[in-house]
Amino acid sequence: MTCTTTRSFLPILIAWLAIAGAAPACAADPLPSWNAGPAKARIVGFVKAVTDKRSKDYVPPAERIAVFDNDGTLWGEQPMYVQLAFALDRVKALAPSHPEWTTLQPFKAALEGDAKALAASGEKGLVELVLATHAGNTADEFAAIVRDWAKTARHPTLGRRYVELSYAPMRELLDHLRANGFKTYIVSGGGVELLRVLSQQLYGVPPEQVIGSSVRTKYEVRDGKPVIVRLPEIDFIDDKAGKPVGIHKFIGRTPIAAFGNSDGDFEMLEYVTSGPGLRLGAIVHHDDAAREFAYDRDAHVGRLARGLDEAERRGWLVVSMKHDWRVVHAPRR
Amino acid sequence: MTCTTTRSFLPILIAWLAIAGAAPACAADPLPSWNAGPAKARIVGFVKAVTDKRSKDYVPPAERIAVFDNDGTLWGEQPMYVQLAFALDRVKALAPSHPEWTTLQPFKAALEGDAKALAASGEKGLVELVLATHAGNTADEFAAIVRDWAKTARHPTLGRRYVELSYAPMRELLDHLRANGFKTYIVSGGGVELLRVLSQQLYGVPPEQVIGSSVRTKYEVRDGKPVIVRLPEIDFIDDKAGKPVGIHKFIGRTPIAAFGNSDGDFEMLEYVTSGPGLRLGAIVHHDDAAREFAYDRDAHVGRLARGLDEAERRGWLVVSMKHDWRVVHAPRR
Repeated sequence: MTCTTTRSFLPILIAWLAIAGAAPACAADPLPSWNAGPAKARIVGFVKAVTDKRSKDYVPPAERIAVFDNDGTLWGEQPMYVQLAFALDRVKALAPSHPEWTTLQPFKAALEGDAKALAASGEKGLVELVLATHAGNTADEFAAIVRDWAKTARHPTLGRRYVELSYAPMRELLDHLRANGFKTYIVSGGGVELLRVLSQQLYGVPPEQVIGSSVRTKYEVRDGKPVIVRLPEIDFIDDKAGKPVGIHKFIGRTPIAAFGNSDGDFEMLEYVTSGPGLRLGAIVHHDDAAREFAYDRDAHVGRLARGLDEAERRGWLVVSMKHDWRVVHAPRR
Repeated sequence: MTCTTTRSFLPILIAWLAIAGAAPACAADPLPSWNAGPAKARIVGFVKAVTDKRSKDYVPPAERIAVFDNDGTLWGEQPMYVQLAFALDRVKALAPSHPEWTTLQPFKAALEGDAKALAASGEKGLVELVLATHAGNTADEFAAIVRDWAKTARHPTLGRRYVELSYAPMRELLDHLRANGFKTYIVSGGGVELLRVLSQQLYGVPPEQVIGSSVRTKYEVRDGKPVIVRLPEIDFIDDKAGKPVGIHKFIGRTPIAAFGNSDGDFEMLEYVTSGPGLRLGAIVHHDDAAREFAYDRDAHVGRLARGLDEAERRGWLVVSMKHDWRVVHAPRR
């Protein structure tokens, strides 16, 4: 091994320049879509505290893990989960091969757009709907279906495509955390294989950092080609007390920050904020009927009651969409 | 926002210096524990091909995922899996509270060190042993037990502590892949919660990049403190056809390189090397009785037959411990 001696000064010079370049002479606002106020200050202060080596709250980069619920936290969930919209569209696409669906609930309700009958079918009906529309194909086939669907599917009242409806302030927050050495995970009650197709484009989160509900799968070799086959059987429900279980199963250590919006995220916030060390738990409160939707205690989808009742006592930050967010939706910069 | 103009030239200068610094004037051998030869050349060539932007085989960093079996691939598995050694030690530690074990198989065999009776209890017996010794506590309690055990537990014939018995050539390979933008995962048939405690120290792999077999868990709040409780029930077996299923479940996309050593890794290698694009599948062949162990077709633990038979046809690299590794065990540099 021969080394040229001229290289030896470079690391020092690079380090010196990097330090000079990092001086805060030009510090841009990392969260321009957030209004100045206690919520923004708390988030920025938390990130500063855990990344400042002189701080008593300093956390090494490897342990800087933040988890985010998806529906209602990173994008909308009203009037129905995006995944349900996908399932209903799939029922329509698959209906020609299932003549029995014209008389069989909950498929009949799905085909007729009968929201009342659909709701009446309850959780059992929804699971049936999801299994019938999300399984039976290979993982690659399913991913291709989701990709195609997402290209055109639009929100029924907001008019934009779903993939344009992520919350700009939350995208900025994800970016800000990652710029500060955080690994960002999504922990969703929704189906993991749907979200993984979209997570990079929507949030800059790679598929391996998406945790969600899942169907069982099996490995097969079909015509010499290995495939993962999706079975019509629930493997894991990543909701409520399932969220800490999912975090433990997939990450294997406790995150230091968690963001949710409904009581489905309660246990996740409770788990993450139980310490030790400085932790951040935050709830996005949908109180903005003008720009999005306003709902909490009485909502059917995304109900938030216990979280609101206990947030103060538990030290959780309640983010007001109306007051704390300068914008809600905005094209990616 | 006010910016000082003197900063603007810095990024260009830093980039220029970084490029200059990366010139191969001083390229050290990334795999000094490997002997020169076709195996080393193939691995180094693969990494070059997928990282060189001008190469037809170039792979963007986000898709550079490599998976490694653990037992027999990253550290030893003879005369028994390290996890079984752990389970036997746990049986001894727990025996005072289980007087029935002195007459009940497979616990009696475990207590008496009766390898023959233990083997006779079969897979069912082993699962019983693992569930009895790996469950019933919280995740934090279990991790503390593993940490304590690993401080002193030693290999029965090699004399060193298990945590000193990782293969130096494989540690170098992990480092080399990571230095080239790869995300390295372990995909083990062993219990994920045991390995996650040791993976950073052993291999520089963080817990969230360890996939393995698992027991079911549940979330509970005990005396106001959230805990993950380990239940005596199998959740997932990450072996054989379970390995591609585990990779799909946890990573959600197909790795481009896979390293194994036994037929338990066959499906993982088959899945990973099924393309598209350049892929690397490699098998560590234990043919080194002098420095470690020599076994393949007739082995009870780590049997390798189909892999050897089909490696050539499938383009898999067979690494000879005896010929391709300059050293087997070596302290971390």
